[in-house]
Amino acid sequence: MDYDVIVVGAGVLGLSTAYHIKLEKPDERVLLIDKKPAPGQGNSGKSAECFRNIFYSEINTLLADTSIDFFFHVQNEKKFDLGIRKVGYLFLTAEEKSRLFKREHIEKGEVKVYEREDLRKLLKINLDVEGDREAEMLGLRNIQKGFQIVKAGYLSVSKLVDFYESRFKRLGGKTLYRTRVKKLILKPKEELGFPCEPHIWQDAEVIGVETGREKIYAKKTILATGAWSNTLMHPIGLETYMNPKKRQLFVLEAKTKELKELLYSKGFNDEEILPFTILPQPLIWMRATMEEDTFWIGCADEIGRGFKLEDDPKPEKYFYIYGIRPVLEKYFPQFKDQKPVNMWAGQYAVNSYDGCPIAYEENGVIFVTSATDRGIQISPSLGKVASAIYFGEEQVELFGGKMFRVSDIGVKKRKIEYELVL
Amino acid sequence: MDYDVIVVGAGVLGLSTAYHIKLEKPDERVLLIDKKPAPGQGNSGKSAECFRNIFYSEINTLLADTSIDFFFHVQNEKKFDLGIRKVGYLFLTAEEKSRLFKREHIEKGEVKVYEREDLRKLLKINLDVEGDREAEMLGLRNIQKGFQIVKAGYLSVSKLVDFYESRFKRLGGKTLYRTRVKKLILKPKEELGFPCEPHIWQDAEVIGVETGREKIYAKKTILATGAWSNTLMHPIGLETYMNPKKRQLFVLEAKTKELKELLYSKGFNDEEILPFTILPQPLIWMRATMEEDTFWIGCADEIGRGFKLEDDPKPEKYFYIYGIRPVLEKYFPQFKDQKPVNMWAGQYAVNSYDGCPIAYEENGVIFVTSATDRGIQISPSLGKVASAIYFGEEQVELFGGKMFRVSDIGVKKRKIEYELVL
Repeated sequence: MDYDVIVVGAGVLGLSTAYHIKLEKPDERVLLIDKKPAPGQGNSGKSAECFRNIFYSEINTLLADTSIDFFFHVQNEKKFDLGIRKVGYLFLTAEEKSRLFKREHIEKGEVKVYEREDLRKLLKINLDVEGDREAEMLGLRNIQKGFQIVKAGYLSVSKLVDFYESRFKRLGGKTLYRTRVKKLILKPKEELGFPCEPHIWQDAEVIGVETGREKIYAKKTILATGAWSNTLMHPIGLETYMNPKKRQLFVLEAKTKELKELLYSKGFNDEEILPFTILPQPLIWMRATMEEDTFWIGCADEIGRGFKLEDDPKPEKYFYIYGIRPVLEKYFPQFKDQKPVNMWAGQYAVNSYDGCPIAYEENGVIFVTSATDRGIQISPSLGKVASAIYFGEEQVELFGGKMFRVSDIGVKKRKIEYELVL
Repeated sequence: MDYDVIVVGAGVLGLSTAYHIKLEKPDERVLLIDKKPAPGQGNSGKSAECFRNIFYSEINTLLADTSIDFFFHVQNEKKFDLGIRKVGYLFLTAEEKSRLFKREHIEKGEVKVYEREDLRKLLKINLDVEGDREAEMLGLRNIQKGFQIVKAGYLSVSKLVDFYESRFKRLGGKTLYRTRVKKLILKPKEELGFPCEPHIWQDAEVIGVETGREKIYAKKTILATGAWSNTLMHPIGLETYMNPKKRQLFVLEAKTKELKELLYSKGFNDEEILPFTILPQPLIWMRATMEEDTFWIGCADEIGRGFKLEDDPKPEKYFYIYGIRPVLEKYFPQFKDQKPVNMWAGQYAVNSYDGCPIAYEENGVIFVTSATDRGIQISPSLGKVASAIYFGEEQVELFGGKMFRVSDIGVKKRKIEYELVL
């Protein structure tokens, strides 16, 4: 065996997993492998880089909340800058209530409520779109309320990647980039030399990976391969319970006075900047990027957007022009006549079943995925869960001391909770 | 609209669904479409043709039990011969107990128990394999008990297909064979003529199918496409919760006196023929085919058998020679030196999550699949469930009067039960 464990995928989740294994047991021989020339260059680097501590499911909420505490710990106590901006997460809703929030959230101050008057004043937003012919064609509804998650914002994924990678290496972890894993090596536990092994009567295990150049052996293999997971898991008959889907992100500059005012909206947070903001259906989101005076804008499309694996997905200009723009302009006339100055596309790994993360071990492989769009913000805790599975633990202590039962996000003893698509 | 509903897939499940829709509402314009030149030519026609009324999950048990009642009703009351042979389903276990059976099954006579002495006498089986070097290499264990499900056996799938198709046509149903559905037609409910519709702000629905030759429109489309389902569902962003996997079946002739005796084993059923028999791990099964004096033999392989869609999967001689044969011969020396005279391969649609059927509607498509290897034996009831979903019913009366809540096998309100892989 060349290593104790190979972690495939150097996105934030693979990095976090590899880091936690080395942290727990520094003598463990860990190899982190990725097809890209550097870590964090896949879909991690294409994300909206946001975090929030409240989800519909308890599992996502716990994993996110503890992960965010870890982010702050790294930045404030470890003095490793992660570029965190605690700008909040503002849901603008067409109803007086939101299924996402409970009364306790508001009572405890975890969620701040904004009335129509506040929103109009703070955002110069057009709340009342109903009655407008075009808005009706778009199916848009008036905005009734704003709910802002306080423990939320954005951070720099590249800095988070640097943190994980540097610590992992300092602990003695090995990395191998520019190396695509072509397949998992499945062998019978007792090889006999017959053709076509493993046979149905043999116990088989994954004992490493095959790259284009070589075979690398390890006692266990962890897949943090996100959207690419099916290409490795399916050939040996293991399921991932997820499929890949394109996600797109469009960048608009705050060129005009009105857009600058929107970008630097006051009254929401100490940073005095627009929170991560989500409009009512079709749930277009936008965030301000203070460092570059831009808005990042996107929308997760459901029906009509196929499941498909693409190594280099392309953003679609028409998706902005015909999909996002007309809706965005109705609520925020400030964006009229503005065009994206940059755009990119990545891929989600979508678990359409319950929208919650998945982590389980079978035949020497540990598969872990955050599923959907919360990879970054739950990566510290989810990586720790994967590390716990690797060490054969049933419970794991998340950052801050809360315990988590790893089988809750497994397959056979899964605690079923449904996440809302937002 | 050309039709009220298009049912894609003329396997037993699609046939049953189409039949139940016409039966419920004879005026409904129903088109059954399939890529093959005739119905039942896909994986239905490659199955082991068996049925049993007891499963681990209540859902599979109910769907199978009521379906079997329907089979008997068709054959006995409707006088349409389905070639049913009620030979039973014999599990040979390495333990004194089986997770599959409850005490009530035995008390009620639904399951007959066979002791080692009975088995040895009736089957001339080698129960004690432990201690043998080769058997230990194969990981085989001694057989302790036999449990025979009484309401079980085999039937003729081609006759079942004939029954469904003839009744469906007699009720006015239309069929279209030799026609491969290339894609589902997804349209916004209100089409505006913009490029790239549907957009994120549009409600979209499947309004029919595109074949190589034409577009066919219908209010609803039902997919009973089994292993092929991902090719139609994934491009529009809908999940099937299953993946295709090859299954193989090998035919051996009862050439010798010993094999004839095994084939015509007495003491199990009124037919005086070997029941459908399952050996302990790795769960090789065999059935007698009285009509042709052959055994059909197979084994569902798990790890190492990849998920992969194949239009024309090939059986693998080595799978029999190195996989099945050594195990089979240890328990049944009668098969020594025998070779398959025929073999074929089909594809399972495997729901690895819970092993239960799936039926749900979204955006004008109703997707239905039995998942794994019980398509035939639950097709009457599952087709009725699909028909109920089509008619917008929440409950459905299965054959014999039992009610079933259709959402139990849906996605979002699914009643989670895990089926045993057997």
